[in-house]
Amino acid sequence: MMDTILNLGLNDQTVKTLEARSNNPRFAYDCYRRFIQMYGNVVLEVPKPDFDDVFDGQKKKAKAKLDTELTAEDLKQVIAGYKKLIEKKTGKPFPQDAMDQLQGARDAVFGSWFNARAIHYRKMNQIPDDLGTAVNVQAMVFGNLGETSATGVGFTRNPATGEKAFYGEFLENAQGEDVVSGVRTPRPFSELLKWNPAVYNQLRENTTMLEKHYRDIQDFEFTVQDGKLYMLQTRNGKRTGPAAVRIAVEMVSEGLISKQEAILRVDPQQLDQLLHPVLDPASKKSLAKLATGLPASPGAAVGTIVFTADDAVEKAKLAPVILVRKETVPDDIHGMEVAKGILTSRGGMTSHAAVVCRGMGTPCVAGAEGITVDEHKKEVGVTAGGKALILKEGDWLSLDGSTGEVFGGKANTLDADPSSGVLKSFMEWADEFRGKFGVRANADIPRDAKAARRFGAEGIGLCRTEHMFFAEDRIPHMQAMILARDEKTRRKALAKLLPMQRRDFAGLFEAMNGFPVVIRTLDPPLHEFLPKREDLMVDNAILPYADIKKKRELAATYQRFGAEVKNLKTVLAGLLKRVEELHEFNPMLGHRGCRLGITYPEITEMQARAVFEAVVQVAKKGVKVIPEVMIPLIGGVKEFENQKKIVVQVAEEVLGKAGRKDLKYLVGTMIEIPRAALTAGDVAKEADFFSFGTNDLTQTTMGLSRDDYTKFQKDYEDRKIFANDPFAVLDQEGVGQLVKMAVERGRKSNPKLEIGICGEHGGEPSSVQFCYRVGMDYVSCSPYRVPIARLAAAQAAISGDKSETQRTA
Amino acid sequence: MMDTILNLGLNDQTVKTLEARSNNPRFAYDCYRRFIQMYGNVVLEVPKPDFDDVFDGQKKKAKAKLDTELTAEDLKQVIAGYKKLIEKKTGKPFPQDAMDQLQGARDAVFGSWFNARAIHYRKMNQIPDDLGTAVNVQAMVFGNLGETSATGVGFTRNPATGEKAFYGEFLENAQGEDVVSGVRTPRPFSELLKWNPAVYNQLRENTTMLEKHYRDIQDFEFTVQDGKLYMLQTRNGKRTGPAAVRIAVEMVSEGLISKQEAILRVDPQQLDQLLHPVLDPASKKSLAKLATGLPASPGAAVGTIVFTADDAVEKAKLAPVILVRKETVPDDIHGMEVAKGILTSRGGMTSHAAVVCRGMGTPCVAGAEGITVDEHKKEVGVTAGGKALILKEGDWLSLDGSTGEVFGGKANTLDADPSSGVLKSFMEWADEFRGKFGVRANADIPRDAKAARRFGAEGIGLCRTEHMFFAEDRIPHMQAMILARDEKTRRKALAKLLPMQRRDFAGLFEAMNGFPVVIRTLDPPLHEFLPKREDLMVDNAILPYADIKKKRELAATYQRFGAEVKNLKTVLAGLLKRVEELHEFNPMLGHRGCRLGITYPEITEMQARAVFEAVVQVAKKGVKVIPEVMIPLIGGVKEFENQKKIVVQVAEEVLGKAGRKDLKYLVGTMIEIPRAALTAGDVAKEADFFSFGTNDLTQTTMGLSRDDYTKFQKDYEDRKIFANDPFAVLDQEGVGQLVKMAVERGRKSNPKLEIGICGEHGGEPSSVQFCYRVGMDYVSCSPYRVPIARLAAAQAAISGDKSETQRTA
Repeated sequence: MMDTILNLGLNDQTVKTLEARSNNPRFAYDCYRRFIQMYGNVVLEVPKPDFDDVFDGQKKKAKAKLDTELTAEDLKQVIAGYKKLIEKKTGKPFPQDAMDQLQGARDAVFGSWFNARAIHYRKMNQIPDDLGTAVNVQAMVFGNLGETSATGVGFTRNPATGEKAFYGEFLENAQGEDVVSGVRTPRPFSELLKWNPAVYNQLRENTTMLEKHYRDIQDFEFTVQDGKLYMLQTRNGKRTGPAAVRIAVEMVSEGLISKQEAILRVDPQQLDQLLHPVLDPASKKSLAKLATGLPASPGAAVGTIVFTADDAVEKAKLAPVILVRKETVPDDIHGMEVAKGILTSRGGMTSHAAVVCRGMGTPCVAGAEGITVDEHKKEVGVTAGGKALILKEGDWLSLDGSTGEVFGGKANTLDADPSSGVLKSFMEWADEFRGKFGVRANADIPRDAKAARRFGAEGIGLCRTEHMFFAEDRIPHMQAMILARDEKTRRKALAKLLPMQRRDFAGLFEAMNGFPVVIRTLDPPLHEFLPKREDLMVDNAILPYADIKKKRELAATYQRFGAEVKNLKTVLAGLLKRVEELHEFNPMLGHRGCRLGITYPEITEMQARAVFEAVVQVAKKGVKVIPEVMIPLIGGVKEFENQKKIVVQVAEEVLGKAGRKDLKYLVGTMIEIPRAALTAGDVAKEADFFSFGTNDLTQTTMGLSRDDYTKFQKDYEDRKIFANDPFAVLDQEGVGQLVKMAVERGRKSNPKLEIGICGEHGGEPSSVQFCYRVGMDYVSCSPYRVPIARLAAAQAAISGDKSETQRTA
Repeated sequence: MMDTILNLGLNDQTVKTLEARSNNPRFAYDCYRRFIQMYGNVVLEVPKPDFDDVFDGQKKKAKAKLDTELTAEDLKQVIAGYKKLIEKKTGKPFPQDAMDQLQGARDAVFGSWFNARAIHYRKMNQIPDDLGTAVNVQAMVFGNLGETSATGVGFTRNPATGEKAFYGEFLENAQGEDVVSGVRTPRPFSELLKWNPAVYNQLRENTTMLEKHYRDIQDFEFTVQDGKLYMLQTRNGKRTGPAAVRIAVEMVSEGLISKQEAILRVDPQQLDQLLHPVLDPASKKSLAKLATGLPASPGAAVGTIVFTADDAVEKAKLAPVILVRKETVPDDIHGMEVAKGILTSRGGMTSHAAVVCRGMGTPCVAGAEGITVDEHKKEVGVTAGGKALILKEGDWLSLDGSTGEVFGGKANTLDADPSSGVLKSFMEWADEFRGKFGVRANADIPRDAKAARRFGAEGIGLCRTEHMFFAEDRIPHMQAMILARDEKTRRKALAKLLPMQRRDFAGLFEAMNGFPVVIRTLDPPLHEFLPKREDLMVDNAILPYADIKKKRELAATYQRFGAEVKNLKTVLAGLLKRVEELHEFNPMLGHRGCRLGITYPEITEMQARAVFEAVVQVAKKGVKVIPEVMIPLIGGVKEFENQKKIVVQVAEEVLGKAGRKDLKYLVGTMIEIPRAALTAGDVAKEADFFSFGTNDLTQTTMGLSRDDYTKFQKDYEDRKIFANDPFAVLDQEGVGQLVKMAVERGRKSNPKLEIGICGEHGGEPSSVQFCYRVGMDYVSCSPYRVPIARLAAAQAAISGDKSETQRTA
């Protein structure tokens, strides 16, 4: 259990030899000091703070700020203090005999197997108690015994690019610490060849052998003592995403590893680095870092600041823009579409901004709590180097959506190459192993659908039809529909939306020729399409005091609702009244999803009509259309039956009228509230497919609002209450139980049931593997995560622990 | 399957005989008309609307508004039309031969067993297909064959009071319909004795025999034809709550039924009628009904209207008050406490007003959507007899919380007698059968705890500590705690709350001497204790325009936060800032419950200290104290462990310091979010008890906010999507699965685990029976529902299907 390396054998005698040989008395005594401290602490169990007291006391005495300012003489004082401390605490002097030291260390290691922490650790990790531990005893070598000695570190391949090149650094007359500390500048391997060709060649030979043995890139350390090479350590090297893919692919062609191994070698998350442009590291160094938020959507973005969606549209015509908001709302969508990147001061990894940006592949830094956004003044307050600073509209900003960093000024970006030859073959292998397990994309508009296809998506797993309603030409009709007081007026407004929605669907079907398209009926609560209640309350309250300028401003704001200066009072009061009626305490648990379609069947009817009219229209062109209509937020079979009936009625009518009853379609449902999972057996008797909405399923199963969780996320993560952000990584222990249950019960009562996932988790590797294991047919995620999901699925397939609960047809 | 009674045998011939004998030609032809219609519809399957067309046509022709205005001649026309219709539809004339009629009817009854509706019904109700149906053929008698004939209905006991009295009405020379239609006024049985003593005595003898046979109160119908008594029908009689109890108890003493049967005879819901005062039915008839809302908390309330909690406190000193609000909030608690009743225009059966009122036993009508409340103008708009009406502060109002009716003016009320001798013995029997299965009450203050004891509660199952913080002397400290920017300031405010909270707990412990008291740590989100965000936004927005009067008003409103006219801007802006920080999108799923105690451990610490200091203090007086500290809203064992550690630390310290380590206590948790139920096995390893918070468990399992559900509740109930309001009756199919799972997993890993329920369902009979069946130890409900729960539990025990999952110690 104790994996400390103790360099034994130093004592009052040997330290003098070391001092003489190394020509560096400070180094010798610092080695001795460190050794005594570590031995005292680990073997003799003297608390570390006691040693620190001695050391800090000496620093104070010597008026040294840095440890390195202590001279050899100072260190001798420290050593004396350490020895006194040990004698006081243990009753015995620090052992001078190397054999005594060795026995003490050996026994301490063996003894550590039985300490409370180790026993607890084994219990937690289910490691058997009788496994035992080992002690390695090995002679020490020194790289600092003069000009024929040296030390160094290296890699068998370039860990940044993956290029097969012998790569590393060394320092003559030095120990490992000198390389790491940065006091001296190490020299590249090209110079090692000149310094000692024999050593160079032997090192190259050794490490090539090690790489062959371990069948992976090696990260090694070595020391040369008096011209003789000693290998100190070797391990598999850490690498970047691009390097991981290149190394894996090249090792297959070198015959070192199998394709399966290559697939398992790359962390799916790392693929992200190959799919987005990145900020030039040089730029990052030269610019001032203004804040760090959550890395909500990866990639680099550089542009000028705008504060509103309308400004974004306007200014984007002249220069790239970064939209800076407290938080984004669906109403901002037109601004988000033109922005190069989004920065918000509120919201988490699954806030509106984050979700939408990941879907669009737009970089986003969310919840940057260090900044203060004033959307009215069009200012953002930041801190640079401890100083408060105000940025205004038009100032340049650079975002790193992969790290959450925000920089002032204009950085350079480096493009990624997603279709590079190496990545292409790698993904082809992944798809080979993944087999029938599908990867679809969440996409709402034809543009996203096309991107999804480019990334290898095999269909659309979630089209959120409401996103279409936020577009500028549609929202007035949507609002008219919501403000309608009777079905007739509602139907009139819906009739205007029908051709637009039909056009959208037709675009998706064309892009997905031959692949399925899952279309979800209207999901969000209706008040999301209207002005905010609190804004209306404020505007109503100040109206009696407003001067003509303010009135004109208000009239402009509410123009869409027929507001003019003279009728402001009536319009605002009427709007507020309707918004108050629609106001909800917990909108996430409110009048939304299928509940809307049950109250207003005409909405579902219009959407179904748009779907099937688009189906007929596109099929006429010879495109293969596979529509799957999905009902959201059901809690049991009765809600599903209610909505399915409407969809089937419309489908039969539209297809019948067109003489295309040959066209097949599915009607299925989201499983996104616990009750739907618990009653999945009944639901599956009626549903053609399930799609797990794990965002909402996580919210309801954990009783946790993803928008509000950010408030105490830190408290929970610091205390290790959640191992991961449950909105990023599926909570297999809790939410996963319901998913598993629903899959099993659903398949049991309907063996043909098609099952997938369309929550954010559908693009997270460990969650994708979970989905594979429980027997789903596919995952669906944002287009830019499709390759990640393809890889994760392939890895799950290779690991080979697929569930018994398989679809039978 | 067909339970229609067909009076066969009438034809063109016999109708003339009937006409002659009954001296009422209109009656004879109306009988014939009805018979043809029913026979035509049921046996010959001619749709009823077709008959209606004929009938309505004749009414139009005769210019008759009421059916009874049609003469015998008119009815002959109708009969002719019916016959023509039947011949047209079936190709055959209406059968005149009685044997033909009988065979047709017999075959229709047997045939009905196989129609689609019957097959579906059997499938739904799991009735075997081979059971078959029966046909009764019986001679017809007539009560309208002159002065020696009569007809009547009666009860063997008084169905309103339960008194053992022969009770009924009759009419001479009449048929059943004449009694029911109200055209003639029936005569009491006392006159039947005079009219025909032999019939009276025989009827009395017959019905006494029937009551003995069926061992229950009989509701019977009879006819006397030419002085001879015929019994037409008998069935068990419907009865009021008080009657049900009295009949059950008296039948036991009469030796008619066993105690078990007596217990099963009373619908637990009916007990409610014995526990609250009721509006005098005479008053209800004389006053104008203004609205009908939800019967949110039973009982009658009469008082003068007030619109704010402060006004309630003020005006209640002079006259009884009814608090009328759009919705109540925790801040209204002081007004709710003094009000005789509460009326709200928004919110459902589990809205704040409803829950609090049921807890306090205050009548409440909630969600009366027909009224419009203007709290600023202090007016409520209602509709009386189709006319709009404005009521103002001080106007009298009468509420029936058991029916949801709202009357204008001052009604009389009738007191209930909960300690009546009959009820007392009845409840004693119930408790006998209930055995060890406990019934506790939800109570937050000593007054409620005392009421709970009176109603037979065996402990407090839920004390919501936050309710204590809303009291006027406490909320300023609570607010100071929330506004604090650091732990030190927070602790200072908490220190002021400590003695108050300790006093409250001491009061509860004293009231519950020897019974357990479950105390829940702080649960609601902190913003509930501060002014509403939207109010602050409005006040901030209008501040620049406010004149001195308005400023003084605002200063008064925010006085508690140190507001004066001169510093209004700073105070309001500061408050808004903090409220914005605390603002949540879905407060139900936000920073509340144990999540607060995890972020601010000092709150849990203070509450634990108050609990255990009160324990020591009360125990000193010789009172037996059984404290159970309950952690709300956990999603897994880690949150519980975190909070338990704090509670145990404080408990050990306080009890240790007092030398009272002998005092025992439990630390347990609510199971109110699905993840807690799913991981109950792990949680139970650490928890001493579970208490199901089925309000929140229903909200999360169904993804349904109870406050927002009211918006579409009607749509869901009309379409039979939910069989019951899931917040009133536990959803056994969905939520129940999680409850059962948690009980089983909890008991498996901790056989000593104490398990109860403290959600609203703990007082709903079918839910109580569910709790009994799954093996809980107790239910807890509002004090006034304790007798209902005791009875429901007794019934479950007698039905005898208790689960295997029992507590072992």
